[in-house]
Formats: sequence, structure tokens, C-alpha cells
Amino acid sequence: MAFIHEDFLLQSATARRLYHNHAAGEPILDYHCHLPPKDVAENRQFANLFEIWLEGDHYKWRAMRANGVDERLVTGDAEPREKFLAWARTVPATLRNPLYHWTHLELKRYFGIEELLDENTAPSIWERAKEKLAGEDLRARGILGKFNVKAVCTTDDPTDDLEWHRQIAASDLGTKVFPTFRPDKALLVSQPDLFNDWVGRLSAAANVDIESFQSFLDALKQRHDYFHSLGGRLSDHGLTSCYAEDCTEADAAAIFDEARSCQAATPEEHRKFASFLMLYFGRLDAEKGWTKQLHLGARRNNNSRMAAQLGPDTGYDSIGDWPQIDALGNYLDALESENALPKMVIYNLNPADNYAVATMVGNFQDGRTAGKIQFGSGWWFLDQKEAMEWQMNALSNCGLLSKFVGMLTDSRSFMSYPRHEYFRRTLCNLLGDDVEKGLLPDSDELLAPLVQGICYGNAKRMLGLGVE
Amino acid sequence: MAFIHEDFLLQSATARRLYHNHAAGEPILDYHCHLPPKDVAENRQFANLFEIWLEGDHYKWRAMRANGVDERLVTGDAEPREKFLAWARTVPATLRNPLYHWTHLELKRYFGIEELLDENTAPSIWERAKEKLAGEDLRARGILGKFNVKAVCTTDDPTDDLEWHRQIAASDLGTKVFPTFRPDKALLVSQPDLFNDWVGRLSAAANVDIESFQSFLDALKQRHDYFHSLGGRLSDHGLTSCYAEDCTEADAAAIFDEARSCQAATPEEHRKFASFLMLYFGRLDAEKGWTKQLHLGARRNNNSRMAAQLGPDTGYDSIGDWPQIDALGNYLDALESENALPKMVIYNLNPADNYAVATMVGNFQDGRTAGKIQFGSGWWFLDQKEAMEWQMNALSNCGLLSKFVGMLTDSRSFMSYPRHEYFRRTLCNLLGDDVEKGLLPDSDELLAPLVQGICYGNAKRMLGLGVE
Amino acid sequence: MAFIHEDFLLQSATARRLYHNHAAGEPILDYHCHLPPKDVAENRQFANLFEIWLEGDHYKWRAMRANGVDERLVTGDAEPREKFLAWARTVPATLRNPLYHWTHLELKRYFGIEELLDENTAPSIWERAKEKLAGEDLRARGILGKFNVKAVCTTDDPTDDLEWHRQIAASDLGTKVFPTFRPDKALLVSQPDLFNDWVGRLSAAANVDIESFQSFLDALKQRHDYFHSLGGRLSDHGLTSCYAEDCTEADAAAIFDEARSCQAATPEEHRKFASFLMLYFGRLDAEKGWTKQLHLGARRNNNSRMAAQLGPDTGYDSIGDWPQIDALGNYLDALESENALPKMVIYNLNPADNYAVATMVGNFQDGRTAGKIQFGSGWWFLDQKEAMEWQMNALSNCGLLSKFVGMLTDSRSFMSYPRHEYFRRTLCNLLGDDVEKGLLPDSDELLAPLVQGICYGNAKRMLGLGVE
Repeated sequence: MAFIHEDFLLQSATARRLYHNHAAGEPILDYHCHLPPKDVAENRQFANLFEIWLEGDHYKWRAMRANGVDERLVTGDAEPREKFLAWARTVPATLRNPLYHWTHLELKRYFGIEELLDENTAPSIWERAKEKLAGEDLRARGILGKFNVKAVCTTDDPTDDLEWHRQIAASDLGTKVFPTFRPDKALLVSQPDLFNDWVGRLSAAANVDIESFQSFLDALKQRHDYFHSLGGRLSDHGLTSCYAEDCTEADAAAIFDEARSCQAATPEEHRKFASFLMLYFGRLDAEKGWTKQLHLGARRNNNSRMAAQLGPDTGYDSIGDWPQIDALGNYLDALESENALPKMVIYNLNPADNYAVATMVGNFQDGRTAGKIQFGSGWWFLDQKEAMEWQMNALSNCGLLSKFVGMLTDSRSFMSYPRHEYFRRTLCNLLGDDVEKGLLPDSDELLAPLVQGICYGNAKRMLGLGVE
Repeated sequence: MAFIHEDFLLQSATARRLYHNHAAGEPILDYHCHLPPKDVAENRQFANLFEIWLEGDHYKWRAMRANGVDERLVTGDAEPREKFLAWARTVPATLRNPLYHWTHLELKRYFGIEELLDENTAPSIWERAKEKLAGEDLRARGILGKFNVKAVCTTDDPTDDLEWHRQIAASDLGTKVFPTFRPDKALLVSQPDLFNDWVGRLSAAANVDIESFQSFLDALKQRHDYFHSLGGRLSDHGLTSCYAEDCTEADAAAIFDEARSCQAATPEEHRKFASFLMLYFGRLDAEKGWTKQLHLGARRNNNSRMAAQLGPDTGYDSIGDWPQIDALGNYLDALESENALPKMVIYNLNPADNYAVATMVGNFQDGRTAGKIQFGSGWWFLDQKEAMEWQMNALSNCGLLSKFVGMLTDSRSFMSYPRHEYFRRTLCNLLGDDVEKGLLPDSDELLAPLVQGICYGNAKRMLGLGVE
Repeated sequence: MAFIHEDFLLQSATARRLYHNHAAGEPILDYHCHLPPKDVAENRQFANLFEIWLEGDHYKWRAMRANGVDERLVTGDAEPREKFLAWARTVPATLRNPLYHWTHLELKRYFGIEELLDENTAPSIWERAKEKLAGEDLRARGILGKFNVKAVCTTDDPTDDLEWHRQIAASDLGTKVFPTFRPDKALLVSQPDLFNDWVGRLSAAANVDIESFQSFLDALKQRHDYFHSLGGRLSDHGLTSCYAEDCTEADAAAIFDEARSCQAATPEEHRKFASFLMLYFGRLDAEKGWTKQLHLGARRNNNSRMAAQLGPDTGYDSIGDWPQIDALGNYLDALESENALPKMVIYNLNPADNYAVATMVGNFQDGRTAGKIQFGSGWWFLDQKEAMEWQMNALSNCGLLSKFVGMLTDSRSFMSYPRHEYFRRTLCNLLGDDVEKGLLPDSDELLAPLVQGICYGNAKRMLGLGVE
């Protein structure tokens, strides 16, 4: 039997029934990813497995380095095929890592390839994949159609002109592609060079002369409006932890002015400024019915030498162990207190925080929007079977799994759509196991809506992206 | 087969044997709960499922809010039956939450009802339950008898006159009802209004003129004596984390005097004062052979807007992520150093702390009282299958499960007695699974005492409440 | 069937196949333990089960205390046989604790004894074990041979003359015994009495007149060289958490001079000094291709009264909950930045940190040495089935299990060699379970190298101890 077979991950009869009858057919709403909209707009064609698979995937890069593969073959100047062969040699060393599953699931779903990838099978797999990539259905748009993706939310800087999104919207593509407002750079007052450069771009994008803090806020709001006009209904923030310190508008303005005069904010000033802005962003989202995403707890660029050499997002990030809960609670409470708490999805990176986060979201459900504050799906290092199960168990035990908005790819790659399948199989396996143990009633009347909601319906309802 | 059947939660033959032969028949010693002693004294009769089930249950309220139920139907002015119907509509949305299990276990054990609760079955269930509640055996005392509850320890303020406890003790009730000394308000020097109000009540209760810190301490001791005279053998403290700072009596007295003059203690003063008092309370317990309970790590009243509207204990609490171990270790060590460490049960709310707490208790076992320092059973959000198993696994791996004092309801509701059954089934299932995997010897000679001790015998022996 | 049987811990056919065909026959490389080299050099004979089993085992002492056994029978002046009987009475109380498994595994492997130990079987077991201990094959060297131990790395103070190691090296013993450089006392500037006493011994051992910080560093390097000359290729540090503060050589020298003048370093000075030295030690290891071990997170000597009575390592230690990751990341990064990062094995004691540590090691894999930075095997309280599985799952999901250097005993006792068997059975059971669930391909071609590498091959390759 092939490693990836019809019932992969489905250990029980109930799991198989739930998956095949109620999960497999649901469309995909990929409400958070890092796909380049340009690739969609231009309907990119990928020359080979390197381009579609290895070019930007720092998960694979990390595995290769841990396997003793020289950087030349990872991000260096080796030929694409040579890099692919180095990856293929690494694959057998990834047994029990999610990469092993993803790799073979992706080879199967995109290319119908069932062999296990290793250095022996690599040359043939390279050739066969190349051949398939030459067809229409593995170009960017073909892939979105093939996986029944109703909508994709990319991740975008407020200064982005969203030209690609406009082109896509004007096209006949069946998949909606929406921008997500990610203003992380607006907080960078402790790095005035980067900050002022960015404020310059913001000024240009918004066509606002930013001569004061107020005009800075106006420009941000103007961009938020612009994202809204193109269908954007989500924002996103990558934070080590929340910011929730007291900061008056005058204080924030003073810190802003200093940064504009190229004087770096102190750590304390930075936290105050960020606290002010995060409230501001919260209000913008609440006013327009958006959903705010918080990605909490990544410790980035741990390896300075490699950061200097390769820059960010190259595989040198990991999980922090900072306190999260006081600041998160205070942030949510501050917004709630002024009736400006938007819908939220909160992702934590350290699984030790799962239960604390899962209970915190329960303090701010408002009795109007079911599942208004969401405990987000397993993120980054937690985007694998064990940690997905932890997240779903924590959510189940401390809240309502039935209102969960479910999976997203969070990916830079068009090869990641089977992650939804992987998640759905894991979900159905968990439910099936419960049924077989008598922990859940054996009733599809109860379970089918649960499964369908998590696969698609909840996200459709809660996020309000206007997809069917 | 009914969802709640004879072998609910019992996955193996050994689990079933252990539960039915050795666990099911053990009496209950509910050594920590929040039942109102008045209800016992007056043998309260409950008019309907709202009164006995929904009236004070903030677990259910949280679930309803997360399901989008309006506050009017949760804690507002809607009719009892209307609130019950709103709860019934929410039940199917709680699949995989412990509420789903508890709900149906309680319907079965109290009313013999086997249908799954939802909006269709709700009207009939409402009526049938109402009818049964009209009988004697579902009045407060009937319930205690029905579930073979040998003793109940309520949770009481030192200023309470314990009049209901005296009435119960004078009655012919087969269940002993003891007070627990919970002096949380004695620490409130940072909130002088509340503090002085409470000191006034303490003064009246103890009939002591509290004109100095020493007389404050005397009054507390006098109340501790009084609780003892009514059979109380446990104290309890709800703390974000332990207090273990150096504080001389003179320092404590100065802080006390300030608070008495309506000057709020600073956070540092508060910690010092609390540290002094916690040592004092430890000595009181040690002198009389009491058992002290520490409930660590709840972050309460997270939602200020709702706290202002509904007050505390209304479903807006969650799990904190503060450091716990240094202060806990220092507190235990300070008492041990002066030979004044009482027996203890330590409950943590963040499961990430399980192993650290489970190992800490092992540092203070004194070779006289087996299981003197206990790692307490899964508390609050952890009072469910997954987290009970975590607690028992941590205790097993880092200490002696065989000396565990086991389960308590921690509940405000007379409907919670099946929690003991739930715990026992979970325990027996865990042991049975181990036996079937060859991780434990297949020997009832070894396992029956283990099971019985955890169900009842250990608590009976260790807590010294004088029950049989 | 005996409790310890051929397939103990092996739940599936695949697990059994993997263990018996690929794991059981691998030799042992015990790269971290606390065995006394004197016992090996002198080929110690043990008079009875007390001497070989109870004399120094604080795991058993803790269990006895928790079981209410008086200290006289634990570490006091009772007769060896009496102490053994007290332990035997405790054994049934340890059900589900790893001690229960270890006890019976050890009785079986060393003495062929299959009965469960309790107070009834104790007298006969005492006698039979005594008889076997009188033979050659249960003397220290016999045991090393019997368990096919290729090499042992003991844990040694830099001031140790390593005379026993020299004697062993000169003997015909088949097992290599190497010293490990553990300079914890070099950091003790906050305790000048201990520090200066130790510097005196260092001076003597190195034959260096330590009149300055530079000569202190020279003496340390000289001892490092000396350990190297006897085959030592590992260092080890026991730290509450890493030290990673800025400290110039002049600052360190000033703190050193103060401590030499009997002035205790402040906590901040201690951290700075320790940070400087830890970088220095890192460079020494990197230069010679050594592997550095970090043992992070133990909270030691929690019980002051018993510490005063019995000293350290007597069963009063537990798991801390300090932040670990910033300091660990900064320490690794500081070494990496100057190209002086040695191979490492990082052990954390709080399982809540597993994922964060497992991801941190991935930031410093250099693409040359496969598995250069290791997430160490479950340590101390985590050296049991549940926590071993957690460690392997975290490593698998966040890194490459296939490059794992696997198990070590970390033990003071010659009775601990079956811990390797216990680990291997746990590993094979985990893999077998995955195969049976279709999570791993059912291919011994893939799995045998994985198993063999973790059992022996990876440690042999990575640690460079020159064993076959």
C-alpha cells in the first residue's frame, strides 16, 4: 500500500466516515497565508520542484542544515537540481518530522507520485514533476482551482499599493484574493532609520503629508480604508507579546516626534508607543467589523551571523518563553472597556501557553458573535499532528471546538494546500477516536455540522469575506 | 446504547473490573467545595433545572456566551425556563467540552434521563426533571445520602458565624458538614475600604477589639479555634502565587496600621504583609494538625466591563502564567525551617506547572505522614479527563500516586456529585490501560488498595476529619 | 507471565521487531554519568543490595519519605538490611512511578529475579542477590562487560587528578572510561569561602600560581588540556539558567579579585562573571572539538533544614520554572558570532520548555556536523516513559530525531544500565506505534538505521570518543 493512501491518518472507521463524507468535500478558505499576489495575478508557471518547493521554504532549509548539508546547497549558489538532490537526501532523515508527511502528501496530490523521496528516487521524481509543472493545472491559478480554494488572504504591508490584488479582482479567477493589513513596521520607533523610511512610504501610499502624529494616524486609517475597499477584512500583528501599557496620545506623539528626528525610542517608550497604536488598530478593526489576528511568541533571528548573511525568515527563528497572559488580558480588556474589541484570532507559538490562551479567549465572548474571540490553529512549529491535537484539545476542554475557524496555510508556497487536508484528517481522526471510545455520541447528525463548520462554515460566517 | 452507560469512560476489561469492583462502592469525602451550608441546613428543595443547575454555574454561562447567547438569557432577567432552553440549545455546541459529559452524566444519575439534551428534547426534560425534583430524594439532604457522601467541607470566611454548620451538626444528617477557614480577605491591605470593612466584621465575630496588629492576629486565631471546635480541619487560600518575602512583625504591624488609617499598601507592602500572614496561618494549621490548601494561578475578573456589571465569579476568570515555583518553594521552606509546615494540598491552575509542582511537593515529605504534601487534583479548567490524566501522570512519575487524596467537587452545585464518579472512571481507565499494556502488574491485590485509597481511604486517613 | 518479560513496553509487532532485531544488540555508550571511577579501577565488589542499590540513590529516598518512612531507615543509622526492607515495603507504593519499572527490570537483569518486590518477597530476594553479588560478573567491571558498555564518561571536577582514570586506562578493561570537565565551582564568586578553597585546589592540580584572573584562566585551560590528554571530549555545566550578560575581561578580573579578597560578588556581578567564564569554556571546547553539555533548570536544596542535615544530592531537588530561552539563545549566539560554538547537548528539566528548546537548537545547526546542537534526552525527573516520549516527540516535530545522540544513565549506580534498555524499548515502541498507524513507512530499510543511530551510532560519530 502506498504511504499516502486514502485513509492516511484515519485510524478508525468513524474517522474515515467523518473525513470522507463530511470533510473532504468542503471548500478551502485560506484566511491567512503569505502567498505572493503577483504569482496569482501573473498565473506563475513553476519550472521545477526547486522553484515551487524549495525556493523559499525555511522549514526545509532548517532540516537540511540539521542534517549537515552545506549552506551552498541550501540557500547558496548551487544549481536548482543540485539543491533538490540535497533535499532528497535529507528526506529520510526527517522521519517523524511533519516534513516527511507533507513532502509525500504534496508529491501525491500535485504529481500523483507515490514513491518515497530519497536520493535514489530523486532524479526520476525531478523529471516527472517538471513535466507536470509544464501543464496549466499546476500554474498558480490551476492550483487554486484544483484545491477548491474559495478565498485566500495574503499578508500585506499598509504601504503596499495592492496593485496585484486589483488585477486579480478584475480577472475571472474563481478564487477571491484579499489583502490583510499587517502594520508591524508602524511600531518600529526604536529603529528610526527603518521607521522613517517606512513612514516615507506610508506617506506616499496614502498621499498624506505626515508632518505630525495625527497625520500618521490618519494615513494609517486611510490605508486601512483602502484595504477594506478591496475586500480586506483581516489585520495581523506579529508580536513577541502584547503591548498593554498606559500611553496618552501626547506621550505617543512625543515618542513619534523623537523617532522622526532620528532619536531611537527607549524600550519603555517603544512599549508605550506600541500600546497606543495597538489600541488604535483595534478600534479601526472594530469599527469596520474586521477580525484581528495576533501571532504571539516568536523569537526571531536568533543567529546573528546568519541573519547578517541571509536576512530574516531564513530558518533561524524559534519559540520564546516570555510571559504572555497579563499583557494579552490587559490588551483585550482595554479594547472591551471602550466597546472597541474586534473579532480576533490569537495564535501562540509556545504550546506551554495553550491552556492559558484557550481560557483567556473565553473572557471576551460577547454573547453576540459566536466564537468572536478565537484560539488560533497550531502555528509554525505547532502546525503538525501532535500540536494540532493539543490546540484542539485545549480549545475543546476550555471552550467551544464547534465554533473554531479552523485551518489556514500560513505558507509562502503554492504547494501547501494539502495542509488543509492534513488538518482535516487530524480533526476527523480525533473525533473518530472519541466516538469509538464512547466519549462522543455516535451521531453524524451531531458530528457532521461540527466537522463542516471547522473545515469551512465557521470561517465563512465569522470572517465576513463575502464568499459562498 | 445510551451515551452514558455502565462502562462509560472505561476502555478496557481491567478498567471495568477495577471501577465496578473497587471504586464504584467507595463513599465520597468531598473535602473542598463551595456548597451553601444554608441549603443543607434547610434541606433546600429545587423548583426546576434552572435552580439546581444553571443559577450559579459560571462554566455553563461561559459556554453560552461563546455560543453567541445574549446575556439576558445567561444571567439576565429572562425566565428560568427560557434560560434553560438557551442552555439546551448550547449543549450540542459543547461537544468535547467536559460540560457535555457532565450534563448527560448528571441527567442520568439524578433523573434517569438518557436522551441527549438539545433544543428538541429540552421541553420534555424540563418537565420530567421538575417532577423528580418535587420528591424528597433530590432535596439537598437526599442528594448527599443518595451519593453516599460521608463528609463535605464547605469554604467559609473567618467572619462567618457558622450558624448553619451548627444547625447541621445538631441534626441527624448522616453527612458531616465541616467549615473550611479561607481568610483571603485578611490580606487585602492594598484595598483599605474592603479591608477595614472586613476587619470590622472579624472584630464582631471574634468579639475582640481590634486596635492593633496583635489583636488582629489574636482575632484570627480565635476564629481558627472556633472553626476547629466545629470540626474544621482544613484551611484554603486563593492566591495568584505564593507570598514568601521577608517581613518582620514590626513591618507587618506598620503596614496594618496604615491600612487601618485608610492608606493603601503599595504592591511591595502588600506582598510583605501577605507573606507574614501566610506564615502565621501556616503555624496555626500546623499546631492543630490541619491541612492547608493552596489554589495557585487564577487570573480573575479579566473583563472589567462585565466585572462592574456582574461582580466576581461570573465566568470571566482564566489561567495565569506567572512564575510559581520560587515563591512556593520559599514559602514551604520557611515553614519547614521552623518546624511549622502543616499538611498541604497544592493546586495549580496552569497545567504547564504540573511537573514543577509535582516535584516540589516531594521536597517536603517528612517521613512521618505518608503523602503529607499533596499535589492537588485537576482544578477548575483542569477538572476534566485530559487534565485529570495529566495531573495523575505527573504525580505518578514524580511522586506516589498511591498516597493521593483524590477528587473533590470544588462546586457550588448539588448537581456535581457525579464528578467523583467521572474522576474514578478516569482513574480506573488509566490504570486499566496500564495493566493491559503490561505497565502495571495484573494484580488486584496491588491495584485494589491503590484505587480505594485514592477514592476515599487516603483522604480519610490524611485529613483527620473523624469520618469512618 | 513475568512482569518483566521479553516484550516489556513493546505494544506492537513492529515495536517488537525493531527492538529485538535492531536495538537490543547495540552496544552502550554512556556519555554522561556519575559513576565513581574508583569503583571501576578497584573493580568494586558489592556486599548486598543496599550497597549497590540504596546507598546513594536519592530517587528511592524521596519515594520512601513520601511513603512515610522514617529518615533513620532512609539515610540514617539503621542496618543495611533494615533499610532494604523499608525500601521493599515502599515498592508497592511506587506503582506508576518509574522506580517500579526500574526496580523490577534491574532485579531481572542483574539477578534473574522475577518476583515483585514487597515486604514478603524481600528477605529471599536479599539473600539471593547477596549470593550473586559475591560472583565476578556483578563486580563493577563484570557489570560493564555484561551490558556491553563501550565507553563511560564520568563527571569530574577540574581539580581532580584523574588518577583512577589513568589506572583504568592502563588496565585491560574493555570499557573506555573518560573524564568529563565540570567546572561549576569556577563560577562561585558569590561564595568566596568555597571559591577560594576551590581555587587553591585548582592551583595545586594545575601547578599554577593563581595570582591573577589571567592565571586562573590559564589554570583552567591547563586542566582542560589534561582532561583532553586522557581522552575527555565532553564538558558539563549544571545551571539554573544560562548566563549571557556582557562582561569585559577587565570586569571579570575585578570580580575575581574581589572574591579572592573574600568579598562576595553581588548577584549581578556573579551573573557577569559566570557569563564571561561560560564563553571562555565554550571556546575551550570549540577549539578541541569537544561537546558541551548544559543541564538547565534544577532548583536544588529546596529544604534548608534537610540540606543542613544531609548536604546536597540527598533528594531535596526539584524542577524550576525560570525563563530559559533568552539567555540560552544569547549564549549560543555569542559563541556562534565568534565562530566558537562547540557541539552541544542541552538538557532542560522543566518539560514545559521542551518545544522552545527543541526549536532553539535548530537555529545553530551549521550544515557541517549533522545534529551538532542536540536537544538532550529526558533528564532526572524526565527520565521515564512519559517524558522520554515527550522529548522524542518534541525533537521529532521540531528537528531531526534521526540525528539524536540518545540515552545516557546520568546515574551514580552500577545498577542503572538497564535504563538504556528501557529507553530503547520506549523508542521502538514509539516508532512501532507510528508504523502501525501508518505514520511511518513500514520499512526496516528506513527504520533500522534510525534505531541503530539513536542507540549508539550517532553518539559514536558525534562525540568523537574514539570508540568502535
